[in-house]
Amino acid sequence: MNDTFLRACRGEKVDYTPIWIMRQAGRYLPEYQAVRAKADFLTLCKTPELAAEVTMQPVDILGVDAAILFSDILIPLEPMGMRLRFLEKKGPRLSKPVRKMKDIEALRTIEPKKDVPFVLDTIKILRKRLRKKVPLIGFSGAPFTLATYMIEGGSSKNFLETKKMMFSAPEVFHALMQKITETTISYLRAQIKAGAQAVQIFDSWAGALAPDDYREFSLPYVKETIENLKSHDVPIIYFVNNCGGLLELARSSGADVIGIDWRVDIGKAITRIGKETAIQGNLDPLALFSDDTTLKTKVKDILKKGSRAKGHIFNLGHGILPQTPPEKAKTLVKLVHELSS
Amino acid sequence: MNDTFLRACRGEKVDYTPIWIMRQAGRYLPEYQAVRAKADFLTLCKTPELAAEVTMQPVDILGVDAAILFSDILIPLEPMGMRLRFLEKKGPRLSKPVRKMKDIEALRTIEPKKDVPFVLDTIKILRKRLRKKVPLIGFSGAPFTLATYMIEGGSSKNFLETKKMMFSAPEVFHALMQKITETTISYLRAQIKAGAQAVQIFDSWAGALAPDDYREFSLPYVKETIENLKSHDVPIIYFVNNCGGLLELARSSGADVIGIDWRVDIGKAITRIGKETAIQGNLDPLALFSDDTTLKTKVKDILKKGSRAKGHIFNLGHGILPQTPPEKAKTLVKLVHELSS
Repeated sequence: MNDTFLRACRGEKVDYTPIWIMRQAGRYLPEYQAVRAKADFLTLCKTPELAAEVTMQPVDILGVDAAILFSDILIPLEPMGMRLRFLEKKGPRLSKPVRKMKDIEALRTIEPKKDVPFVLDTIKILRKRLRKKVPLIGFSGAPFTLATYMIEGGSSKNFLETKKMMFSAPEVFHALMQKITETTISYLRAQIKAGAQAVQIFDSWAGALAPDDYREFSLPYVKETIENLKSHDVPIIYFVNNCGGLLELARSSGADVIGIDWRVDIGKAITRIGKETAIQGNLDPLALFSDDTTLKTKVKDILKKGSRAKGHIFNLGHGILPQTPPEKAKTLVKLVHELSS
Repeated sequence: MNDTFLRACRGEKVDYTPIWIMRQAGRYLPEYQAVRAKADFLTLCKTPELAAEVTMQPVDILGVDAAILFSDILIPLEPMGMRLRFLEKKGPRLSKPVRKMKDIEALRTIEPKKDVPFVLDTIKILRKRLRKKVPLIGFSGAPFTLATYMIEGGSSKNFLETKKMMFSAPEVFHALMQKITETTISYLRAQIKAGAQAVQIFDSWAGALAPDDYREFSLPYVKETIENLKSHDVPIIYFVNNCGGLLELARSSGADVIGIDWRVDIGKAITRIGKETAIQGNLDPLALFSDDTTLKTKVKDILKKGSRAKGHIFNLGHGILPQTPPEKAKTLVKLVHELSS
């Protein structure tokens, strides 16, 4: 098996810089669209054979160094007691939003084997198919990010309801976070037991918080999650979107790898997270709309700066856009491999 | 006149920390809503008597230390040759979007006296009304931020068309930026000549750029704008939204004051911008949904950290939200004045 990705996560010597791409199984690939034509998004997530099929696509088509389970961070919120729908072009909707202590008390913590067996089955299928290929990454949303969806009932621009709760009823917010964290821990633990060889925790909305609020309302629950997974000895990646103001705090999460978005210089980010933690990132997803010369310059720069880190996993700074030409994603993978060899 | 704001911009000694609030004249005020009921948004911007009236409201109601011209950053794009509309709840629409060199060649650079006389007339009315009160701030969008609207045709999530142009036709993008910069300079110069005692340049979308792209595609035009205004000897504030990855670069803009959003720690930001530049910010606008004790703690912390800067002007880290209780905005102004005296 190509274990370059796992070695880089651990800061071990590698022959080249490994790369995977956030949302690498997704709408930009015609092969994904073909599967998606047969099933709606949630059905796809919940049908192991189909989820495994689309997970494999970027491994075979792009030649990335890791596969990531095809699923959605909101999946565990359904068995917690929320109703989840995905509206075409409008994104996720969760009803009814969690606003009061009694809403939180009504939430369940999940039992993965019983509540999300399809996720674990997908992982088992994938480990067989990936045996001679690349490692499999499992994932979960970070507790704060999941909380925003549960409180807002979907995506949000300003996180009005979330911050109202944080700032005017912190005890309610913390009770919610504690409940989500229990789910996150058992969810990731089950994924690891089923065969995930690394896990990524997506804090997609952490960057909406002032650093002091992040320290109080998000970070402790990420730490708790990570502490509870450490004994499993798989690399833990903590992706902090819009991390510019948060890196010094994020380094204390205990993660083996900090994933960063594209809005920070990766060289400066490495200085800020220090030599104990590997780094993942951080090409602007929109750079895949460059001509090849510009793309090469950008990749070279990130690789050069990334070489100073304990370990560097190349990735985009956020998910690949549906409009991306698949050929550019292939070019990116090739460039990263060639330029770092 | 209360010149505390101007003194803080220049790093001079002040008796207390001055405060103004981005979007302080706006939908959260019932007094504003009453005026807005009589005129649509663009008519309000273009009717000096009404624009002056709503500009004065927060000065009289909240007791802020500066007034800011009521207008919109997109106003100068109309005389440049674009059609501008504001759709209720959907925000601005500009047609037709600028995509090709010929679109750019067709753009005019504006003559403020002829093209936007209402802006200059509003300023003249306001200077009379503000004579014994507080200074008046004029403003403009930063060239990059204006470019995004012109290219996308409105607000944008991913800036797909903007970055496509930047990364695959940089000469076209730079030509557009040059044309916008000429407009920005003459627009701000005219505002200063009409009586604006400080100006703020809003780079609302700078934070969507990777630092190296910001350095290449936004910063040079901000610098050019500022250089061309320096002889007028009014403080220039450069607001960089989502500045977490950009502060070291933004400090080289030449601005007297760097305005920061709430996602960075203001203490760390002061270290990064150094002792030659004053700072403005940076309370999370959502903190106005806190109870008063929480709000006080947050304000105290920012004031304490801000006291290390060359000069500190208190502000929110972004515009005040329409849902904000006006009483909280009053409380904020009072807290800043009391706690910093």
